Amino acid sequence: MIPSKQLVREAADRIAPFVHRTPVLTSHLLDDISGAHLYFKCENFQKMGAFKMRGALNAIQQLSEEQKKAGVVTHSSGNFGQALALAAKNLGVKAYIVMPSSAPAVKIEAVKSYGGMVKISGPTLESRESESAKIVREKGATFLHPSNDMNVIIGQGTAAYELLQDQPGLDFVLTPVGGGGLLGGTALYAHYYGSECKVVGAEPYEVDDAYRSLKSGKIEINTSTNTIADGLKTNLGDKNFPIIKKMVSNIIRVEEEEIIAAMQLIWERMKLVVEPSSAVPLAAVLREKEQFNDKKVGIILSGGNVDLTKLPF
Amino acid sequence: MIPSKQLVREAADRIAPFVHRTPVLTSHLLDDISGAHLYFKCENFQKMGAFKMRGALNAIQQLSEEQKKAGVVTHSSGNFGQALALAAKNLGVKAYIVMPSSAPAVKIEAVKSYGGMVKISGPTLESRESESAKIVREKGATFLHPSNDMNVIIGQGTAAYELLQDQPGLDFVLTPVGGGGLLGGTALYAHYYGSECKVVGAEPYEVDDAYRSLKSGKIEINTSTNTIADGLKTNLGDKNFPIIKKMVSNIIRVEEEEIIAAMQLIWERMKLVVEPSSAVPLAAVLREKEQFNDKKVGIILSGGNVDLTKLPF
Repeated sequence: MIPSKQLVREAADRIAPFVHRTPVLTSHLLDDISGAHLYFKCENFQKMGAFKMRGALNAIQQLSEEQKKAGVVTHSSGNFGQALALAAKNLGVKAYIVMPSSAPAVKIEAVKSYGGMVKISGPTLESRESESAKIVREKGATFLHPSNDMNVIIGQGTAAYELLQDQPGLDFVLTPVGGGGLLGGTALYAHYYGSECKVVGAEPYEVDDAYRSLKSGKIEINTSTNTIADGLKTNLGDKNFPIIKKMVSNIIRVEEEEIIAAMQLIWERMKLVVEPSSAVPLAAVLREKEQFNDKKVGIILSGGNVDLTKLPF
Repeated sequence: MIPSKQLVREAADRIAPFVHRTPVLTSHLLDDISGAHLYFKCENFQKMGAFKMRGALNAIQQLSEEQKKAGVVTHSSGNFGQALALAAKNLGVKAYIVMPSSAPAVKIEAVKSYGGMVKISGPTLESRESESAKIVREKGATFLHPSNDMNVIIGQGTAAYELLQDQPGLDFVLTPVGGGGLLGGTALYAHYYGSECKVVGAEPYEVDDAYRSLKSGKIEINTSTNTIADGLKTNLGDKNFPIIKKMVSNIIRVEEEEIIAAMQLIWERMKLVVEPSSAVPLAAVLREKEQFNDKKVGIILSGGNVDLTKLPF
């Protein structure tokens, strides 16, 4: 059930030629404010502006030659659609991206610019799923889920693998948690490659399905999604939840104002453009300072795709 | 007149313990757009958010022990006041910063937070100068000019020294030009440490005093300062102009819309928070693509101190 050390190591080596080795940055000012020693893994500098490229690459690379010939398909209104299109282009594979009719034109153009074949569905999840199923049926393409696919999960975790190589003595790694791919993958690598490194998820109160799932022991869902962290609205899945249940220490929930304040600190003090989801782990550290006092804390800055004309400050 | 190779090398070693060795970042997307190979020296990550710390440190370090005891003074409404206050604090020296009564409260607070002693003057240059002279007279403090002081000029150039160490084969280095300290200092280090590396200044049309000064052979001034690049409104001085005249290849002027577009590219594509002045060199490369086609081009991203509530896009 839990992938082996060899399996995750191979994934890290497999995707390395196709991704940026993103830098790990520090900030004396944020260390002073938090009371911790913070190490920020800058996946906002990753290709297409987010870590999602990693999982998409690994999932495509694990397909058979025959599967690769028929292409891949996903449905997404966000970063994973762009990531799959770009990863597929880099690997010479066709990618069909099903996007809801409500998707902003700029996101549709971004997928097209990476060579993705966009199929517009109706706005509902059902419509997206049936359009995807049709492409699987008619083209023989393989469906890849943005977060609940073991090869995607492993791929997303490679950011933490690089972080732990650069900073072997981390006491904690924090990631935001949405669909659970990044958190699950991070937990795998921290388990195998972090010496005593605990993994903590950070989540908005408004979409605290992961927190509630860990409490109840089964996958809980969000009934509303009223958060600025638009990458974190999705629920956990049956592939990543067992990993998270077994290997994640705890989930810290934060208020919307805390997310915005943390985002502003990263922009103003670190001079980094990050999306709201990326600021959730820093907000968690600032909320629960005692837990992290004087500890070495890695934070995955998950992405930097943000509309500059719609900033919350 | 022109400082020796040994002198500039010593300055680089002298300030190194007190500054961040800022990273040099690249962007495939901006390389594609420009047709050049771009290397961005990230002084927006420097302490207090700009390169100005470098010149302030070097100038204070070159004072006698007696001068250090009496402290330093400058007048500034911008980054140099903060830089001098922080550099002085690091070196255990008192800093008097004369700021006009029109200065925003947030900037006055920033200087105070670095331990600077703020003296408020009237809003005119005359008032600032007479207040500074009074402090020199009464306290025995040494006046340090933000850009027209040889030790400041040399200190500012150390960013280019580090850049040339990381990328020895650069064909060009571009910096914005305001008072001429950064451009002059960069030219010195490129002269001694860049093999065939040309130095180009980048300037808004609205404040093109450096362009006109190089044409006429004497220091020209700006009669209006209607530019978004608020760090570049000042004129060259008699200490840096001879260096610029001798060692700078050319000055490229750019329109205000080109500055905003280049700034947006850096924010959106590189995920970096930079101030408008920092975007002027990229705007120059994009305006004069032929000059830089397929060349290795270093760009000093001079700073990242920007009001997030007043973005031009």
